[in-house]
Amino acid sequence: MRKEISCVLVEPRKMELREFPIPDIDDESFLLRVDLVTICGGDPIEYEGRNPKAHYPMILGHEMVGTIEQIGDAAARTYAVDVGDRVAVEPYILCGECGYCLTGAYQFCTRSRVYGVNMSCNAPPYLWGAYGQYLYGARGSRVHKIARDAPDEAAVLSSVLGNGVRWIRTKAQVKFGESVVVLGAGAQGLASVIAAREAGADPILVVAREANPLKWTLAREFGATHLIDLDTVQDPLPRVREILNGRLADVVVECTGAAAMMELGLELARPLARYVMIGTCGFAPNALKTDHIVFKELQIFGGLGQSWDTEAAVKIINARRVPLEKMITHVFPLQEAQEALLYFMHHPERALRVAIKP
Amino acid sequence: MRKEISCVLVEPRKMELREFPIPDIDDESFLLRVDLVTICGGDPIEYEGRNPKAHYPMILGHEMVGTIEQIGDAAARTYAVDVGDRVAVEPYILCGECGYCLTGAYQFCTRSRVYGVNMSCNAPPYLWGAYGQYLYGARGSRVHKIARDAPDEAAVLSSVLGNGVRWIRTKAQVKFGESVVVLGAGAQGLASVIAAREAGADPILVVAREANPLKWTLAREFGATHLIDLDTVQDPLPRVREILNGRLADVVVECTGAAAMMELGLELARPLARYVMIGTCGFAPNALKTDHIVFKELQIFGGLGQSWDTEAAVKIINARRVPLEKMITHVFPLQEAQEALLYFMHHPERALRVAIKP
Amino acid sequence: MRKEISCVLVEPRKMELREFPIPDIDDESFLLRVDLVTICGGDPIEYEGRNPKAHYPMILGHEMVGTIEQIGDAAARTYAVDVGDRVAVEPYILCGECGYCLTGAYQFCTRSRVYGVNMSCNAPPYLWGAYGQYLYGARGSRVHKIARDAPDEAAVLSSVLGNGVRWIRTKAQVKFGESVVVLGAGAQGLASVIAAREAGADPILVVAREANPLKWTLAREFGATHLIDLDTVQDPLPRVREILNGRLADVVVECTGAAAMMELGLELARPLARYVMIGTCGFAPNALKTDHIVFKELQIFGGLGQSWDTEAAVKIINARRVPLEKMITHVFPLQEAQEALLYFMHHPERALRVAIKP
Amino acid sequence: MRKEISCVLVEPRKMELREFPIPDIDDESFLLRVDLVTICGGDPIEYEGRNPKAHYPMILGHEMVGTIEQIGDAAARTYAVDVGDRVAVEPYILCGECGYCLTGAYQFCTRSRVYGVNMSCNAPPYLWGAYGQYLYGARGSRVHKIARDAPDEAAVLSSVLGNGVRWIRTKAQVKFGESVVVLGAGAQGLASVIAAREAGADPILVVAREANPLKWTLAREFGATHLIDLDTVQDPLPRVREILNGRLADVVVECTGAAAMMELGLELARPLARYVMIGTCGFAPNALKTDHIVFKELQIFGGLGQSWDTEAAVKIINARRVPLEKMITHVFPLQEAQEALLYFMHHPERALRVAIKP
Repeated sequence: MRKEISCVLVEPRKMELREFPIPDIDDESFLLRVDLVTICGGDPIEYEGRNPKAHYPMILGHEMVGTIEQIGDAAARTYAVDVGDRVAVEPYILCGECGYCLTGAYQFCTRSRVYGVNMSCNAPPYLWGAYGQYLYGARGSRVHKIARDAPDEAAVLSSVLGNGVRWIRTKAQVKFGESVVVLGAGAQGLASVIAAREAGADPILVVAREANPLKWTLAREFGATHLIDLDTVQDPLPRVREILNGRLADVVVECTGAAAMMELGLELARPLARYVMIGTCGFAPNALKTDHIVFKELQIFGGLGQSWDTEAAVKIINARRVPLEKMITHVFPLQEAQEALLYFMHHPERALRVAIKP
Repeated sequence: MRKEISCVLVEPRKMELREFPIPDIDDESFLLRVDLVTICGGDPIEYEGRNPKAHYPMILGHEMVGTIEQIGDAAARTYAVDVGDRVAVEPYILCGECGYCLTGAYQFCTRSRVYGVNMSCNAPPYLWGAYGQYLYGARGSRVHKIARDAPDEAAVLSSVLGNGVRWIRTKAQVKFGESVVVLGAGAQGLASVIAAREAGADPILVVAREANPLKWTLAREFGATHLIDLDTVQDPLPRVREILNGRLADVVVECTGAAAMMELGLELARPLARYVMIGTCGFAPNALKTDHIVFKELQIFGGLGQSWDTEAAVKIINARRVPLEKMITHVFPLQEAQEALLYFMHHPERALRVAIKP
Repeated sequence: MRKEISCVLVEPRKMELREFPIPDIDDESFLLRVDLVTICGGDPIEYEGRNPKAHYPMILGHEMVGTIEQIGDAAARTYAVDVGDRVAVEPYILCGECGYCLTGAYQFCTRSRVYGVNMSCNAPPYLWGAYGQYLYGARGSRVHKIARDAPDEAAVLSSVLGNGVRWIRTKAQVKFGESVVVLGAGAQGLASVIAAREAGADPILVVAREANPLKWTLAREFGATHLIDLDTVQDPLPRVREILNGRLADVVVECTGAAAMMELGLELARPLARYVMIGTCGFAPNALKTDHIVFKELQIFGGLGQSWDTEAAVKIINARRVPLEKMITHVFPLQEAQEALLYFMHHPERALRVAIKP
Repeated sequence: MRKEISCVLVEPRKMELREFPIPDIDDESFLLRVDLVTICGGDPIEYEGRNPKAHYPMILGHEMVGTIEQIGDAAARTYAVDVGDRVAVEPYILCGECGYCLTGAYQFCTRSRVYGVNMSCNAPPYLWGAYGQYLYGARGSRVHKIARDAPDEAAVLSSVLGNGVRWIRTKAQVKFGESVVVLGAGAQGLASVIAAREAGADPILVVAREANPLKWTLAREFGATHLIDLDTVQDPLPRVREILNGRLADVVVECTGAAAMMELGLELARPLARYVMIGTCGFAPNALKTDHIVFKELQIFGGLGQSWDTEAAVKIINARRVPLEKMITHVFPLQEAQEALLYFMHHPERALRVAIKP
């Protein structure tokens, strides 16, 4: 029996390499040779033991690109891919039977199975995360074929860009010519900028406090028309008004989860604006002047998963319209997965997206 | 020249009767003999001098029913009413030229003229509020004919019921068979209950802490299927789940402005629920666990004015489908307008809606 | 091995009783003892051989109510039903993997399996239609528990009423107080009337040429406020204008498929009205003055399946709010299924819905 | 008193130059010196006497750019323009009081006043059309400032491009990555192509039978990714499927009004597609297989006026993102206005948009 090596999070803060049997594939499943996996901003939550739904020991990793090594006939038909195809696999595994899955909201699937997030590698066929040489592709996966000339470093970010698509296209339904303010310039913020440009938004403002200069560079390169650095601009409101010819923003996307930024977003939004809220803070209470919401009749849309948004993201990646790969600042080998994770956690001023190459 | 008497709020906390000339009417205006006016929950804000947009001296009163005594030809055509007709007049006066007025959002009219709220009675033709015998009906008013057999005590509440229509029909877009939780059982909450029943919502839950027993009685009579009194039910979440067969609410309408109630609303909402937020608190910060909004992808809609919602409210009133008049607990003569206002402010346990009869 | 009897449509226009083995049930399937099945308006299409997707021999029947006789554990959990429960089963069987199923549009499932419509009874486990003693409930079914005191004669019509819910609630998104014109008073039209009343529509007009007096009686009983019989009213336009105080309809639902009625609907619709088109005519060309669509900026919504609308229909049935059972004018035993079908086809002036009782 | 010259359509088919007094301007009006006006595809309707709402004698012309020569203070504030500004003026004059104007649908204004279309030049101040040196800008106009470096030849087409914005952005609500099929490559079709590219649509197919090669050239230049010439491609369905990887179109825009093209659009649309119908045919009956609408649950949106869509069009023009001016193939002096109109009518194979320069 063939073997492979994956990096197991044995318990919070303890990772080690382990050998696993390469599983058999039935008609509805597939075997993915992982080519690249990135460390999601959420991975530290499982690493530190703060996700009550995680089951240890587990293999992290749900932002991935790989190559189909084996695939069942039904799966090949369903996903329209074949052996040798390079694919991105979404984090969620759909049950396909619950009311959420069947109405386009599989992020709320009642069975709630997510690669690299909440399944133990004690449960066969074990390979439920992408920090490893192989991933087991279960029935209910969402698989997207990657174009030949799209680099792994871009394809691996399909779910990250899918988030931007979700905030901008699905939730805020941005129309061309509308003004968009993105709060925060991390991976979520940059993905929102890309999607805003695809939607024809104009202008696109990024307002953030970011020590990492790459973020500012990429924000500009990905389509932001105006950058407002909160380290130098004390009060961004008059600056935003000036850029918008005296008006306020049609759309706000809040990516930080910080109360002060959320509040700033409420101030920057025009009456009847759409406000996408995606930043989280471990269920801490955020003090907000909710009267802004009432007196401006704001529309706030919480944003969680990128269900049905990755299609559009992969289309952008496959068309090579934006150098998404520049978001990846570091690559580590699988043997150093823990170092990679720790580096990502402790060097936000340098690391934007850190990849692991099995 | 004919004279009339109105009650003037000379400065915060000081009201007195004054005599005014009855104004001339041109082609586009009308003269309304006020039959009844109710004290809005917002009137104390101007009374206490907390509305920076108010201009003193002023005549309060924007929830009214009256009789057309004179009307210009153009106005008669525009409003489809004539001398002798009993009408409800909405609070807002539309400029008819700004982008908000012209796109159905006249609550944000850039000229912002509201009867009884922000215009001084020093400005001719003086009669800009309904705490008086007459009101001047300016071009840009919204006027609704009242059916012969609909009582003044119901008609006077057309904008209150218009609010319920706005929260339920326009903002939450409630469909029949959906579950609605209303937080608070004051005038806004009761109006929401009525609108929810009109929309075929089922079940309709009212969750509140209300000392006034009439509110509970009316909530039931107006269509609430379940009442949850927070003075007796410590933790309403399990009770709501039980009523909803283990699910959470499709729609939440928050009418209190209290942080604890807002937070409760976030907990009672199902994933992807619509949450209408209308309670205000003087721009105080409300501590909310915003992660609920993100992790359940909630949709929050701030609710301010009842633009274009009063049509449906008047239709309900004219059809006599609900005894709205029961919301009026007290009636005072014009001479005692200040007493009426103070009674309303200081006896919430008895007064639900207090009317003034000029 | 136990046997059962079903009525097989051997080839177009030829039906006969046959004996089948009662199939085994696995974890995800169930066995339904059919209590009642109604003849859908579409059943004659397969009977006459006009549906190219039908596979003969076949068992007709997709409007049904029955009792769960056996059920696998997984199916019991998914459907939240158990042995002995009376249930309505929807026509569609979902693959749960295609883009349509997963986004709430299972009427377009790419595998396209529909009970009693397009599967041959040569394919095991044979019992794919409800004109028989038993139906095989496959994985992917949609199952709704029927309340104890709701009669079979109402429950059997859950998908019919689901259609009304779809046209009125899902497609036209009717709000309370809106005017609705229903063209045609057959089963679809009556279902639309019921749903329109649930939505608080007012007024509800039925315009039709119907020889069957029961249809008019039920239209009135189910909530129509005005009936316009085209056999007596030559030109319905002025009559509709009168009822609507000079306006035209907010919403039109066209149920006949006749060009003249479709055209009438275009005339009766106000600018920006919603127009639900569900009547079909075998792909014959219908001559329509499409300029009405342009000059009034009408919104036309084709209406096919009742995906996700049967929930609300069953809720209405279980609440016993409307005597849906009155739509069933005739009941035949299974042995006379062919007579039942022929009676339904040839006596539209007497038969509204004809049921078969196995 | 100063005089000006306009070209009057005295009666159908008879035009002549006439001298008019230059009108006085009050607080709410303005005087526009017409710099350029284009002949709308609808102008021949009034020229030939086929518009029953036209009042002769009249001055045609409603697609215009000009310079503010005089303006009242209130008008200057409302429109945010001043003397010397170059502006585009929309065709519609809003009453600002009817339900349509006040809810964003001024194309249905009950007073229905449209420059150059339905007002007689016998009615003071006479200058109600732009085929002349001056136009009277009435209260209720919609005025857009043109950027200094945007050419008149582009600015004059703001309402034409506004149509494209309406079909693509307002009606079809195209999202980036969606496929759009435009039927017809005239001015409406080309405007739709531009708007589709702004919205990020991909691919954008133009299907047409157009003798004028410029139309094909511009379709490509303005953003069409695929052109299908019906003179060479007999059956476009397989070609469209091939381009769309076996699928059908997400969005169809039908600009011709021809029954065969409308029918083709129904065939090319995927299930649940949006189909914008804007082509007209003098209320002739068009034979359509309406069953396509039902069986694919198509959503058809009639498209008439460009209310609130010209803002986005002017933004595109002012940003100089597309050489809209290339649509203007001919320019005539005012003295030859009738020749210009006749040329436009009789040389569709050469003339795309014909301008008149006063």
